[in-house]
Amino acid sequence: MTYTLVLLRHGESEWNAKNLFTGWVDVDLTEKGRAEAVHGGDLIREAGLTPDVVHTSLLRRAISTANIALDKADRHWIPVKRDWRLNERHYGALQGKNKKETLEEFGEEQFMTWRRSYDTPPPPIEKGSEWSQDADVRYAELGDEAPLTECLKDVIERFLPYWESAIVPDLKDSKTVLVAAHGNSLRALVKHLDGISDDDIVGLNIPTGMPLVYRLDESLKPTVKGGEYLDPDAAKAAAEAVANQGR
Amino acid sequence: MTYTLVLLRHGESEWNAKNLFTGWVDVDLTEKGRAEAVHGGDLIREAGLTPDVVHTSLLRRAISTANIALDKADRHWIPVKRDWRLNERHYGALQGKNKKETLEEFGEEQFMTWRRSYDTPPPPIEKGSEWSQDADVRYAELGDEAPLTECLKDVIERFLPYWESAIVPDLKDSKTVLVAAHGNSLRALVKHLDGISDDDIVGLNIPTGMPLVYRLDESLKPTVKGGEYLDPDAAKAAAEAVANQGR
Repeated sequence: MTYTLVLLRHGESEWNAKNLFTGWVDVDLTEKGRAEAVHGGDLIREAGLTPDVVHTSLLRRAISTANIALDKADRHWIPVKRDWRLNERHYGALQGKNKKETLEEFGEEQFMTWRRSYDTPPPPIEKGSEWSQDADVRYAELGDEAPLTECLKDVIERFLPYWESAIVPDLKDSKTVLVAAHGNSLRALVKHLDGISDDDIVGLNIPTGMPLVYRLDESLKPTVKGGEYLDPDAAKAAAEAVANQGR
Repeated sequence: MTYTLVLLRHGESEWNAKNLFTGWVDVDLTEKGRAEAVHGGDLIREAGLTPDVVHTSLLRRAISTANIALDKADRHWIPVKRDWRLNERHYGALQGKNKKETLEEFGEEQFMTWRRSYDTPPPPIEKGSEWSQDADVRYAELGDEAPLTECLKDVIERFLPYWESAIVPDLKDSKTVLVAAHGNSLRALVKHLDGISDDDIVGLNIPTGMPLVYRLDESLKPTVKGGEYLDPDAAKAAAEAVANQGR
């Protein structure tokens, strides 16, 4: 008896394509991103996986990815749950900034600290600034809990309560669960599942649009560490490309 | 203090375009149908309406319509609830048949009875036949409750429990509710809201892709009988076209 968890990182967004830090800015998928979601849905269907419920963030690029992939997998009709705790890492004052320009302006060390440090967040975003979410009604309920910047550690801290209270119960109900989310919220989940250290998670990249399947035992430990990509060769090449972003 | 309910009938489907009886067959929208959903979402946004929750059927054409319209209205992130009780009328043995050929084969009177009679369903669909849903996992939980054919009266009987148990509580929670559904499940709702007689509902047609807004008082009576279309002139023309289908 194992539980089945399928992770899907959204495909290319308009700001991925423009090489901008996105975070909580609610940009759309590009045509390439939509095609990635279609391919992800095809892989899910071809693997015979049948998600019974989908969890998404509150961001369009993950929501559209889920909608497109589930439609292709003939599972468009399953229950949907959405929560801000699955959102991408809030990128603070870097939101809206060009990655290459940021690298040039602040240098390799600062750039890599902001991008990959486990516990150093970028400077907080200024309230009322162009790419801030403080006027966004979807986060109004959060009040002061709404982040103004996050490091990966912060993402893990706000993600895990949702994992425990919303996703684990679905798994224990023997549902095949699809989580359609973001690079950093999925890294948070993978770190938790695989027991990856704070140091080692820095080097882990999750490719876009590639379903990553975890079979979990009754104590929710992965039966295969790191899970299994439905298209492992493509996933490996894509993860290497993610690691080189900003270059 | 009024409650706001927005009804949206899905746009043109592949089988609308081919003039086939569809019912519970899970066909996709056409490009025209997608454009109708985009336009519906634009109207919702331009009217300043902000759905807080969406209810859909389990059928792709309503689900995609909701996804597309909510994306255009910047409300893609709201909670989603789906239920078979919002499905289109089950068209029984007519599912998959051409409307014009059915009209020619059975004559005007029988044809109009099947299409528009309040309480005469078409012959039941044969289990295991090409356009039957008895092997469809999404309805497995229904067991013998799953219909093999329905008249409008049957639709009302299966829809109203969902209205009372799922939609009314959202309205009473002061949520703006979007219901993205089908010609006959929405006729069932409109009949109930406006207190339309069994005879008069026969002549009522709901156009596709046109948001219909009901403001309901505290006893859930419409403040304006029949509700208000966001684009009333286009809605009137479209309703007349629906009435002439099969000709």
